[in-house]
Amino acid sequence: MKTKVLLNNRIVDLKSANVNILDRGYQFGDGVYEVIRFFNKSYFELDAHLIRLKESCEKILIPFKMHLKKLESDLVYLMNTCDYDNGYVYIQISRGVMNRNHIYQDEVNLKPQLVAYTVREDHRPLQQMEKGITAYLTNDIRWLRCDIKSLNLLGSVLVKNEAYAKGAKEAILHRDGIITEGSATNVFIVKSSTLFTHPANHLILNGITRKVVLEIAKKEKLEVKEIPFSIDELLNADEAFTTASVSDILPVTSVLIDEKSYSIGLGKRGEITKRIQDSYTNLIDKIPQDQSTN
Amino acid sequence: MKTKVLLNNRIVDLKSANVNILDRGYQFGDGVYEVIRFFNKSYFELDAHLIRLKESCEKILIPFKMHLKKLESDLVYLMNTCDYDNGYVYIQISRGVMNRNHIYQDEVNLKPQLVAYTVREDHRPLQQMEKGITAYLTNDIRWLRCDIKSLNLLGSVLVKNEAYAKGAKEAILHRDGIITEGSATNVFIVKSSTLFTHPANHLILNGITRKVVLEIAKKEKLEVKEIPFSIDELLNADEAFTTASVSDILPVTSVLIDEKSYSIGLGKRGEITKRIQDSYTNLIDKIPQDQSTN
Repeated sequence: MKTKVLLNNRIVDLKSANVNILDRGYQFGDGVYEVIRFFNKSYFELDAHLIRLKESCEKILIPFKMHLKKLESDLVYLMNTCDYDNGYVYIQISRGVMNRNHIYQDEVNLKPQLVAYTVREDHRPLQQMEKGITAYLTNDIRWLRCDIKSLNLLGSVLVKNEAYAKGAKEAILHRDGIITEGSATNVFIVKSSTLFTHPANHLILNGITRKVVLEIAKKEKLEVKEIPFSIDELLNADEAFTTASVSDILPVTSVLIDEKSYSIGLGKRGEITKRIQDSYTNLIDKIPQDQSTN
Repeated sequence: MKTKVLLNNRIVDLKSANVNILDRGYQFGDGVYEVIRFFNKSYFELDAHLIRLKESCEKILIPFKMHLKKLESDLVYLMNTCDYDNGYVYIQISRGVMNRNHIYQDEVNLKPQLVAYTVREDHRPLQQMEKGITAYLTNDIRWLRCDIKSLNLLGSVLVKNEAYAKGAKEAILHRDGIITEGSATNVFIVKSSTLFTHPANHLILNGITRKVVLEIAKKEKLEVKEIPFSIDELLNADEAFTTASVSDILPVTSVLIDEKSYSIGLGKRGEITKRIQDSYTNLIDKIPQDQSTN
């Protein structure tokens, strides 16, 4: 079956899902996005993602006039019409189409452009969830509004490809020696049974999986400190893991700095990481199955 | 006459100049661009712009396989077929079209996508060149590779619109109190007949007009220091001006910080600024008129 794309109010084939070159998404990266996982034809944390999408729009002053319920039912429609049960939906909103000009505020007819489509993803990354990954440490070169999930992703693209070329699965970023997050993930470390992760300020994206992990930790009575930690603290941690909607919760078992590899903890998935993964699995297994009736 | 767009190797009307939503320019801002001014059907500093375009591609590892001479003749063709003598060409190159993934390096068939079209601009901004502009001072929130003229322009868009909403023409940016550049311009100050401008490192775009101004200063035997200067030094300068290909050389006669306005020097165009503008005008008047025969 061909991928169906929601392009504003129309459903079109991916091949003919085109936008004009004057779309500000294309010329300025002037827009925001979300990636939302679904399992067995049910979205996971749909509300949280849609609320963040709205907030991202508001932060860059894109008027968000859609009703969340309507958008939700559109996304459920997309999910239900695809011929697989597991995957994710990608959704982006750009500011609109106008003659190229940094200044948009005089443009009275500017209409935000919405694009959404689903992608098949049969399984969670089970092998990496167990074996862990190598992460490559590099400078955080991104802008100072990483709290906005914007289309300005070139910084993330460059560091992730740099990591990949070195044989690492993810880039872990630091600003002046302080770990912020991964190129497309949040980063946690565990030290003496306490979880540490960078506070959700302008330097990181406040991830939905990060939020769920914090909720799990609270339930599990694990101490959590949302405070900055250093490269040294990462390297000396008992455990480390990354979180994101599609790449899931992945143990970081080694960190590559320049050409040198450093083991984290015992160099294998830690016990607390596994406990959190298991609780996360339980949550996924308990997703309400009534979304399709929306 | 309708705007003609060069879309890779085809010429199409602007209205049908569309790209697929999977173009990495649209989903990641993964591309670079240039804006090149022409006067009387002749480009100004065409070579310098095309060399920078190639360098921007190389910096983000987009393979640049076009012959510059072929690209040059394409841009001359676009200029010659439009029905106005003065304007600029906008040209952008994105990494290509592929299923969305930060990692692009496994995609063997990725082909860079080129878009170029001309825009009418009858006159240089003569009134602002004489009267000067108010600039709004704000934080430089952009990434740490501002030397790349990339499509990741949301930071510039946000600060420029913030400035515009405050009644200012441009945003002047500072990082921890050091002036870097404007949202879409380079910034110079003059103190005791010496010109100061931020060094061309990773924190600013090495502007072509900036380069021309440095050449003019050399010819005019004006001392130039490419060293960082502070907010205080800006406010206490004898003169200040911004440079860019389309917005030209504009005196900054006042700077707005929060709600307070600070006059720069005498609050009007300074003598050295005028001398540089005049020399720039002479260069424009002397553009070789043989480009159309390429």
